[in-house]
Amino acid sequence: MLIRVDLARIIIRENGESQVIVLKEREGDRHFPILIGLSEAIAIDRRVKGIDPPRPLTHDLMSLIIQSLDAELDRVVISDLKNHTFFATLIIRRNGDLIPIDARPSDAIALGVNNDTPLYVEESVLRTVCAPEESDQNEPGSDDEYHTDG
Amino acid sequence: MLIRVDLARIIIRENGESQVIVLKEREGDRHFPILIGLSEAIAIDRRVKGIDPPRPLTHDLMSLIIQSLDAELDRVVISDLKNHTFFATLIIRRNGDLIPIDARPSDAIALGVNNDTPLYVEESVLRTVCAPEESDQNEPGSDDEYHTDG
Repeated sequence: MLIRVDLARIIIRENGESQVIVLKEREGDRHFPILIGLSEAIAIDRRVKGIDPPRPLTHDLMSLIIQSLDAELDRVVISDLKNHTFFATLIIRRNGDLIPIDARPSDAIALGVNNDTPLYVEESVLRTVCAPEESDQNEPGSDDEYHTDG
Repeated sequence: MLIRVDLARIIIRENGESQVIVLKEREGDRHFPILIGLSEAIAIDRRVKGIDPPRPLTHDLMSLIIQSLDAELDRVVISDLKNHTFFATLIIRRNGDLIPIDARPSDAIALGVNNDTPLYVEESVLRTVCAPEESDQNEPGSDDEYHTDG
């Protein structure tokens, strides 16, 4: 089952190795962080803010390529979590066909975020990373909480 | 007229603002630098060396998208130079059609470099950035020599 989520926060620490984005379910309170790289975090932040650079930056170019090939990004799904790594799938629509493409969550979210592309997480992934509220096994801030995107 | 060139050098200075790639004509000695960003330089370097990451990085994903949409990158052209900024065009082939897409040279080269995609420069651009050998108007190292990719 797919759960609709939104990008709730982007935390950029210029001198940190990893940056953090937080996804939060739309119809509930569950949320979880994903560690991503600096350039991907900056790309997401810029595209969220709608800052238009003079030349197409990398994810802008990726969008242009999809459009130029008569396709569109239908949705982004955080589809799996293996060995502390989140996996995402781009679902691209062309002529009524849905084409799944394996991606890192950071690229998938950077690509989707300024087109209001719906973002989903597999329920099983959400259950793994979000402990129920009554549990204290997975306290915020513990190392176990953090998973990367590749 | 299009002149075939190769990526001759990548100069990465981790603490520098701008990195440098050098393109050199295949049938001659003319060559010129393009200033690019760090993450694009690292992407080009990794793809030149054929280093395969565990997860698709941004330009790998761009390649995957093109393939998944039944297209291929036919060639990359450094097509213009305006206000010290180089412009590139991706030529994407699908079903015999050639589709031009505006790009920064760094993304275009990162995308093309590990598929042996032919790389060209417009003769007029090459004439602008490469002074004839007998001229000393454009000495190597002078600021005038440097143009960025966006």
